[in-house]
Amino acid sequence: MFFASDNASPVPQQVLDAVAKVNEGYAASYGTDVEMDEVRRLIREIFEAPEGEVYLVATGTSANVLSLATLVQPWQAICCHRNAHIAEDECGSPEFYTGGSKLNLIDGDHGKITPAALEAAIKVQVQGFVHSVQRGALSLTNATESGTVYSHDALKALCDVAKRYDMPVHLDGARFANSVVSTGATPAEMSWKAGVDVLSFGGTKNGLMGVEAVILFDPKLAWEFELRRKRGGHLFSKHRYLSAQMLAYLTDGLWLDLAGKANAAAKKLSNGILSLEGATLVHPTDANAVFASWNRASHRRAMEAGAKYYFWGSEGNLDGPDDGLESARLVCSWCTADAEIEQFLALIG
Amino acid sequence: MFFASDNASPVPQQVLDAVAKVNEGYAASYGTDVEMDEVRRLIREIFEAPEGEVYLVATGTSANVLSLATLVQPWQAICCHRNAHIAEDECGSPEFYTGGSKLNLIDGDHGKITPAALEAAIKVQVQGFVHSVQRGALSLTNATESGTVYSHDALKALCDVAKRYDMPVHLDGARFANSVVSTGATPAEMSWKAGVDVLSFGGTKNGLMGVEAVILFDPKLAWEFELRRKRGGHLFSKHRYLSAQMLAYLTDGLWLDLAGKANAAAKKLSNGILSLEGATLVHPTDANAVFASWNRASHRRAMEAGAKYYFWGSEGNLDGPDDGLESARLVCSWCTADAEIEQFLALIG
Amino acid sequence: MFFASDNASPVPQQVLDAVAKVNEGYAASYGTDVEMDEVRRLIREIFEAPEGEVYLVATGTSANVLSLATLVQPWQAICCHRNAHIAEDECGSPEFYTGGSKLNLIDGDHGKITPAALEAAIKVQVQGFVHSVQRGALSLTNATESGTVYSHDALKALCDVAKRYDMPVHLDGARFANSVVSTGATPAEMSWKAGVDVLSFGGTKNGLMGVEAVILFDPKLAWEFELRRKRGGHLFSKHRYLSAQMLAYLTDGLWLDLAGKANAAAKKLSNGILSLEGATLVHPTDANAVFASWNRASHRRAMEAGAKYYFWGSEGNLDGPDDGLESARLVCSWCTADAEIEQFLALIG
Amino acid sequence: MFFASDNASPVPQQVLDAVAKVNEGYAASYGTDVEMDEVRRLIREIFEAPEGEVYLVATGTSANVLSLATLVQPWQAICCHRNAHIAEDECGSPEFYTGGSKLNLIDGDHGKITPAALEAAIKVQVQGFVHSVQRGALSLTNATESGTVYSHDALKALCDVAKRYDMPVHLDGARFANSVVSTGATPAEMSWKAGVDVLSFGGTKNGLMGVEAVILFDPKLAWEFELRRKRGGHLFSKHRYLSAQMLAYLTDGLWLDLAGKANAAAKKLSNGILSLEGATLVHPTDANAVFASWNRASHRRAMEAGAKYYFWGSEGNLDGPDDGLESARLVCSWCTADAEIEQFLALIG
Repeated sequence: MFFASDNASPVPQQVLDAVAKVNEGYAASYGTDVEMDEVRRLIREIFEAPEGEVYLVATGTSANVLSLATLVQPWQAICCHRNAHIAEDECGSPEFYTGGSKLNLIDGDHGKITPAALEAAIKVQVQGFVHSVQRGALSLTNATESGTVYSHDALKALCDVAKRYDMPVHLDGARFANSVVSTGATPAEMSWKAGVDVLSFGGTKNGLMGVEAVILFDPKLAWEFELRRKRGGHLFSKHRYLSAQMLAYLTDGLWLDLAGKANAAAKKLSNGILSLEGATLVHPTDANAVFASWNRASHRRAMEAGAKYYFWGSEGNLDGPDDGLESARLVCSWCTADAEIEQFLALIG
Repeated sequence: MFFASDNASPVPQQVLDAVAKVNEGYAASYGTDVEMDEVRRLIREIFEAPEGEVYLVATGTSANVLSLATLVQPWQAICCHRNAHIAEDECGSPEFYTGGSKLNLIDGDHGKITPAALEAAIKVQVQGFVHSVQRGALSLTNATESGTVYSHDALKALCDVAKRYDMPVHLDGARFANSVVSTGATPAEMSWKAGVDVLSFGGTKNGLMGVEAVILFDPKLAWEFELRRKRGGHLFSKHRYLSAQMLAYLTDGLWLDLAGKANAAAKKLSNGILSLEGATLVHPTDANAVFASWNRASHRRAMEAGAKYYFWGSEGNLDGPDDGLESARLVCSWCTADAEIEQFLALIG
Repeated sequence: MFFASDNASPVPQQVLDAVAKVNEGYAASYGTDVEMDEVRRLIREIFEAPEGEVYLVATGTSANVLSLATLVQPWQAICCHRNAHIAEDECGSPEFYTGGSKLNLIDGDHGKITPAALEAAIKVQVQGFVHSVQRGALSLTNATESGTVYSHDALKALCDVAKRYDMPVHLDGARFANSVVSTGATPAEMSWKAGVDVLSFGGTKNGLMGVEAVILFDPKLAWEFELRRKRGGHLFSKHRYLSAQMLAYLTDGLWLDLAGKANAAAKKLSNGILSLEGATLVHPTDANAVFASWNRASHRRAMEAGAKYYFWGSEGNLDGPDDGLESARLVCSWCTADAEIEQFLALIG
Repeated sequence: MFFASDNASPVPQQVLDAVAKVNEGYAASYGTDVEMDEVRRLIREIFEAPEGEVYLVATGTSANVLSLATLVQPWQAICCHRNAHIAEDECGSPEFYTGGSKLNLIDGDHGKITPAALEAAIKVQVQGFVHSVQRGALSLTNATESGTVYSHDALKALCDVAKRYDMPVHLDGARFANSVVSTGATPAEMSWKAGVDVLSFGGTKNGLMGVEAVILFDPKLAWEFELRRKRGGHLFSKHRYLSAQMLAYLTDGLWLDLAGKANAAAKKLSNGILSLEGATLVHPTDANAVFASWNRASHRRAMEAGAKYYFWGSEGNLDGPDDGLESARLVCSWCTADAEIEQFLALIG
């Protein structure tokens, strides 16, 4: 009964096999390995983006911040949701990599920004007025930190606002696969066709040991990105081991299968929780995370039985009457077992 | 016949096995995995440093620059050899991570700094004079970029100079194992007993997929290092896969065995080359790299047969008389086969 | 009828005289001039701070950001009011100088932060959690950007909260003199006795050509501040011309006289506006700026007659019915003439 | 007998008068004052650069580093003489402002770089190789730190090399006036006609209280420069006081008169020293600084009589035989009096 994070899961056998397979003889280093050529080819195909440039890094934070640093100047602001990973969970890494860009935090229900809220936030930056930080980029997250998913249309509406103000768009796709599975839209529709310029295409939370692809749909940015990656210490000498993982991920739709399993597990969990008396969802369960609220007595039983998940409401404080409600986040992954969910639901039911 | 770099080698089976073994169930993330506890314990034991703090990152550049950023202020200089990796091969990553520290480049034969040259360089920084960059840290490399090795005494003499000026010492140990094998000194003697405060303890060039340990012999720096690692995007969520590799590396002296093989291969290659008429060593072969000079006709034969290595002298230009001399760098690794060496020597002989 | 900014005023004759007086022969440079010794002595006396270190710079932004950079680490946050000068009017200069610290923006009426709001904001930074930006410093502004003034007690209540979380306090005192005059408290009470560690003691908005003192009540920070000032390009070679201005400012209470005139002018203006039918104050007039709201017809008459001031409400749009209300900011300075105010009030009345 | 620095001199009466004259009523702030319009017009005229953009700052360091930051990316190197002010005397300010660019230090006699040495240095940066810092800009200094002057042709030869490698050129003209007077060339010939893209046009060392103009001959860089100036804290609110000084400086050739006096004084001093038995010039006296070597006994007499100047050779150590030679730097300024020089020469003679 482990629902603490999708970061805690192992990797599927295909990934280990791919790593073992590539472990033969000498290989060209620093991203010039032949496996990377294949990764590039596959990603261009999957994303219908023949001109796109593709780079691999090993952490989601580095994918995000290298992308943002390539898109904005130090005196420009990055619009993002108040609870975005770049705002809350990266210890100021965007500010470090961009040389001090400001995050322009936007409130919004269920981890989502609305076009109106975005436009209002953009206008806080007084363009052309030297005392004000200038307009930079928009950074979206899909699936969001609240487990919700923007549709293609919703993404496009936001990107359209950004474009109207000449702002490029970055998408933090640590859980991009989950958003594709959730919407049924194509990878292209969920990225460049909606207006995304740079995508952090996540692998780690969805079954890799530590690989993320950065896709620059505008190849003009490629050389700067390469220099920033090197300078950030994120260029791997034995790059084949990253390529191999990504290759396995892209082959035969493994990345979508894994996300499909995680999303389905979350849906099952969500439905089960909702059947509890008084239980409610804090956010819709669009992807692989459940944000729900239910009674304290059940929480206590689950924890005493060893279930792992985050309290979102009262920060873990379970004192108080049994029927008081407490919010929690439960994250499923590709390897969440039906049995885990059933055991959990039985406990809290 | 591949001698281009030790970065191009595969990893030994033990490393793959360790990764497979750790791929079971859920694991605590971000460095709190149980394997990391064991890594920490082993490194403290091997280095006789019970108080030392240990962190894993995935690239040598990140190990170096996170260490340096923790040791110096932006207005301080880092003394290093003119050909240090941090000076020539990291695209300004130290300047990025430190917020603009200056590298104070020191000349020296065979990739080494002398205490006298170090002291002269330190004095360039006028301490207490606000117009001058101030004294920061000393960064040494062992084995050096020229394939030579500082002895414990040589290291200590340099560290003693640094300490006299209140400068902490970083050691870029991308090839630390090779230096230990080469000297027969203990890991402690080659690091903190000589005066090293922070060690980049390399794994990648010596058989891992991409893991380096940073050892802070002074634990006071630990929390700052952790924040810098996170902020640099170098904290791995699925950290167990780094830990597992390092664990295999440290177990039963694998790290020393691998370096021993690489050093022995280089020695064999070096001796073979020296037996050529007119051949000379550009630098002594102390570790796993051979820097030698021999006639052009032999170089041509080797290259036409597909041997891979770097020219160091005329930048790959092989025109000119057959008996002209050309310098080259040949790097051996744990997996350099005797047959490769023999084939190569036969070709050039 | 000029109420656009206190930055547009000339300087009093005493300041010019002091500059002329110091323009004799050779003088020690870079802050070692004898006039600076006298500045230091006077500030220590005025602030009852015999240990305080004093430095001069030429702009308010540099005073603020050098102070903040000395107080916080790049991975720490600076709590400040959402409308603080450092947040809105310095084009990201704090982020540049600190190496990417985050501003933690706090809402609050009339430009002021409450202790409760401060405490809530501090808790957003999860101390000891490596994914979160850590606690840094509190930056207050007095007089505030809304023309209001914190009392000694109000300042102390905020500093007490900061100290409880081990956060040092910076005070942006671009209009410090106005706050002292407004409250009748001593300079010490309005700074270190309330808990302020570093004060940007403004001169420019209050009658100097371009001089601000930074007062470090904790002298331990002095050398780092000096290095940051130099590195920022803010150390003046012909420093005597800064010292001379500050000396004139401090002599015979000129600084308080100038602020007293500005505050009195604002009060007179404020009272006059309030006597208009329907007029209201947007913020109390505690210092030298009036934030008020009155009918459009009056605004139009004032503007057509050439009065200069900022609209705060509808951004200068004066269309609409004559009796609609519009907000504006009017700033007085030491040289605002009674006649200007009377002419203005006659126009709008 | 003060020859320590041109930074220690007072300002001519015209400058004080101009400041007093501009001290009338309200003025537009932040560089929009009418005096700045006139400064811009005059500089464009003097430099025959109708498209050039002009900005004022108050320190030479800020003029240099804001210029450089506008010209280079953080991963690029700035070629400059090993003894350039940006390398030795700005406490790493270029590294801070550029976000960590590397200074590529070039040796050269008499403070000058040769085209061959420049080209060799440029080639150290392996363009297009991600591990190497990339080519950035060339920064020259004229008059140099050694009191010598590049001719138009010499400047052009260096700029031509830079242009061949697509590198823009910055000129640190803290003593630009001295170089113009020394060569008799036009300001345009000493800047853009030779290939200079951005000029730090010094005023402070040549008679102003603290004003430097940055001239961007390529106006495309203007807006970025403005943002960097603001962000650096170098945009003055009461800008008219900078404009007024620069206006006086440019009017009726005052700037050239002042430099002419300083150069003539240095020449007189240099000639006098050379007439001493055994005295030699360390560097030619092209501008306003004398670098010479003469016997210890004379140095002692001068110092005991209170003469102020820098020892360059033995760092102030005057022990040893009377006829031993010691090097020194003596700087003249616009206000160096003939009497001072004569008194000094009499002493040492």
